[in-house]
Amino acid sequence: MKIDLTSGSQTTTMDIEQFRKEAYKAIDQICDYYYALQDAKIPVVSSVEPGYLRPLLPSSAPQTGEEFALIAADYQNLIVPGYTPWQHPSFFAYFPTGFSFEGLIGDLFASSASNPGFNWTASPSCTELEVVVMDWAAQMFGLDPVFYNSSGVGGGCLQNTASEAALVAIVAARKSYMDKHPESKLEELVIYVSTQTHSLGMKAAIILGLQVRAIEVRSEDNFALKGDALRSAIEEDMTVGKRPFVLVATVGTTSSGAIDDLPAIGEVVKDYPDLKIHVDSAWLGMALVCPEFRETCYLKEINEFADSFCTNFHKWGLTNFDASAMWVRDRRYLTEALDITPPFLRTPQGEAGTVIEYRNWHLGLGRRYRSVKLWFILRGFGIEGFQAHIRKTINLNKIFTRLIETSPILKIVVPPSFSLTVFRLFPKPQRPDEPPIPEETLNEINQLLYGRLNARKDIILTQTKLNGTFCVRFAVGSRYTEEEHVKQAFHAITQEANRTLEAWRQGVIGET
Amino acid sequence: MKIDLTSGSQTTTMDIEQFRKEAYKAIDQICDYYYALQDAKIPVVSSVEPGYLRPLLPSSAPQTGEEFALIAADYQNLIVPGYTPWQHPSFFAYFPTGFSFEGLIGDLFASSASNPGFNWTASPSCTELEVVVMDWAAQMFGLDPVFYNSSGVGGGCLQNTASEAALVAIVAARKSYMDKHPESKLEELVIYVSTQTHSLGMKAAIILGLQVRAIEVRSEDNFALKGDALRSAIEEDMTVGKRPFVLVATVGTTSSGAIDDLPAIGEVVKDYPDLKIHVDSAWLGMALVCPEFRETCYLKEINEFADSFCTNFHKWGLTNFDASAMWVRDRRYLTEALDITPPFLRTPQGEAGTVIEYRNWHLGLGRRYRSVKLWFILRGFGIEGFQAHIRKTINLNKIFTRLIETSPILKIVVPPSFSLTVFRLFPKPQRPDEPPIPEETLNEINQLLYGRLNARKDIILTQTKLNGTFCVRFAVGSRYTEEEHVKQAFHAITQEANRTLEAWRQGVIGET
Repeated sequence: MKIDLTSGSQTTTMDIEQFRKEAYKAIDQICDYYYALQDAKIPVVSSVEPGYLRPLLPSSAPQTGEEFALIAADYQNLIVPGYTPWQHPSFFAYFPTGFSFEGLIGDLFASSASNPGFNWTASPSCTELEVVVMDWAAQMFGLDPVFYNSSGVGGGCLQNTASEAALVAIVAARKSYMDKHPESKLEELVIYVSTQTHSLGMKAAIILGLQVRAIEVRSEDNFALKGDALRSAIEEDMTVGKRPFVLVATVGTTSSGAIDDLPAIGEVVKDYPDLKIHVDSAWLGMALVCPEFRETCYLKEINEFADSFCTNFHKWGLTNFDASAMWVRDRRYLTEALDITPPFLRTPQGEAGTVIEYRNWHLGLGRRYRSVKLWFILRGFGIEGFQAHIRKTINLNKIFTRLIETSPILKIVVPPSFSLTVFRLFPKPQRPDEPPIPEETLNEINQLLYGRLNARKDIILTQTKLNGTFCVRFAVGSRYTEEEHVKQAFHAITQEANRTLEAWRQGVIGET
Repeated sequence: MKIDLTSGSQTTTMDIEQFRKEAYKAIDQICDYYYALQDAKIPVVSSVEPGYLRPLLPSSAPQTGEEFALIAADYQNLIVPGYTPWQHPSFFAYFPTGFSFEGLIGDLFASSASNPGFNWTASPSCTELEVVVMDWAAQMFGLDPVFYNSSGVGGGCLQNTASEAALVAIVAARKSYMDKHPESKLEELVIYVSTQTHSLGMKAAIILGLQVRAIEVRSEDNFALKGDALRSAIEEDMTVGKRPFVLVATVGTTSSGAIDDLPAIGEVVKDYPDLKIHVDSAWLGMALVCPEFRETCYLKEINEFADSFCTNFHKWGLTNFDASAMWVRDRRYLTEALDITPPFLRTPQGEAGTVIEYRNWHLGLGRRYRSVKLWFILRGFGIEGFQAHIRKTINLNKIFTRLIETSPILKIVVPPSFSLTVFRLFPKPQRPDEPPIPEETLNEINQLLYGRLNARKDIILTQTKLNGTFCVRFAVGSRYTEEEHVKQAFHAITQEANRTLEAWRQGVIGET
């Protein structure tokens, strides 16, 4: 349909029937893409070079509207090849990003209901579905009922990302601390993280302009934050007038899947009740769906003393980006820090306290509608389907771990954590009297290995450094990954490891 | 497909062909919904009561997966009736939230490419499309080329919401100020807003724990912030050792569409160059697409001295929630405040500076993929289609304004602003010697009027207070709104206004 500028009454370029036709085609395009993806017919690393797109597109928006068929074709030809396909069976980088067709249809409905969802009145079912679905999820993970929305005390909501959940938690903790100690200066406040905490801790600190102390962790503790280290830091800081007010503890760090020592941290907190605890379990939290992993993930301790807890459905939880779930023990923790209701947002329902006004639980005002996809996924998979996904992925990682253990040149660096294995090239001595390779050289060799792996288009992995030790991470999680892909990955890694070693033994590295 | 827990290899409940079938049906459901919506066959106000949903849903997620047909039916029967249909032709509340079928298909593709998009490598085309589309938009609005990504100096990105864009801008301004004045205490810093600035200013302040000063605006200035008021506030605050570091100026306030006096503010800033300026034009910024509105919206001044500028495509800009566009004059303004790149996120491309790493431009790490819908919309509508939408909406508001002007009992409170009219019940005297109605009584009458309007299901409007004056807002923007709906709205308002007056004259209000 053409736009009639003269009448001024027609501004629709695509009407409902055109939409039906074009949307069907889009669905078909997506189906084609997923057939190619699950059969690994497209590479897991895009071949595009930085800046590839601009020369392929006009330098400005068109003056008049274009046919949608042309737009959809450009999408397929210009944009899709530039994707990093996170659902590819050979994707082992970062942590997985979830996907399911149930979630995709959920997102489709959510987008069709385009609304800013900032309070109950803005779209009642958007709020109410989130309230219920977050309770389903809390129950599924074994969280204490105090975290349910139905408790009327604590509650759960969806945040944009785990970084923003941590930021919100820190803002709430600061408010709580300042209310108790109004004489405090912002300059005295200290956020605690460990050196293995995700960058979300540092980022929250620079956003808020507050000090952050990254407490050292040790390789012999598998990079977990221990209670004594926390206690020493608190005592040291308080001696010089600093005010520790919040700790971001991690259950499943990004680098190595480390789990901070929550039982010991709980003991420390008993002596320092002003210290609020945010437990970030962005990746690993999904494992709580399986009862057999709850003890290892310190569910009991989370239930006992975490003030807030976050885990991302959009990582290991089958959910299309984004859906970061956050629960708090006391909803006033958030609302007292974030509620600034202006007159034009006051509603009879909100004032009466009969509904949750989620805008007071997060940073922005407008709120995306994400509960519908989560509802679809929880219903489509059921708890057992969710568990099956988690267990399958962990089993695939075990297969990888065992392969690494058989290798004469590769070594596991820390005990594998669920679906994550951190390894490095570590050649066994060729002669019994061969001196050990210096750590610095090992790092160089491993950086070369990673560089080689990074140049391949058939596998994708991420690097990390653990207290100075350069390593490679292998994280399983795509729903399309099967045993064969894990074996292919091990084969590719072994191939590059051998080539790296060969180059090193020929003195290529030593000479540099 | 049933989940086979024994093999551990099947965790897909919906396969590609089932998805095709169910997604087609979902498309049909959405088409049915939009037919009902554009024909106003569903009410603009949902009839659900707070708490309606929980009793209709099970108390926990199902143990095993359910058939999707059942889920989709529940969506239609339980969730859709609880929506506030922001695209309804009789939706005149808040500001509009955008929608277009082009955007919906864009969102569908974006969700299908589920990825966290935090850096170039995470999905190259997601970053590159955003880089290009933001330049298209900047050009379309007449922004100075310094704001284009192609400038290599400034640039544009999509933020979650205008609130978060303002928060990011304030964080950047604080960093810039503290770098220049490292001796400053956070307690001394002051954020400036006006009493008519959106709550985003207050919210940013409580999030950051900083002081905020809401400068008074006057009805005789149509609630715009003036230069002299700003200058007085700065001088007063600096005298007592406070440090003004950022002003959130508004082009098109939420309450009444006021436009702060940017030319005068620009003069003040010349004398106080430490004061950074964020221009929030969340709603009105879309009008910049029409050259005839640029002078009124102070585009020249934005181009001359705004450090950052934000406008929401998801409001008046045809775009499904969310797509909040933000530009900065110097990208280092953001990156120097927000970049904390850890080793596992370092990429050769990022280190070389050849690509934009958008994670350093916003609060979180993960980043939604929104550029595809914006690209589809800009191409589908073209610049002229966009302009037609803006002009049509403004014309509809003019129709409403003229109707109010003819009314003996309704009065426009401030000059109408583009597609927003603020009015109130203001009965003309019945006898020449009748004393004027006291302001307090007028407020009571208007609250009663708003309560009556609020009880109707065929129209939705929002209240506001302008320096103590209780008013009703009428904001046009749904693409389905036509002249007839505006006339119906005026009719409904007149009806309730007459009933309110009648009740008042019978002493119902006077007695309370």
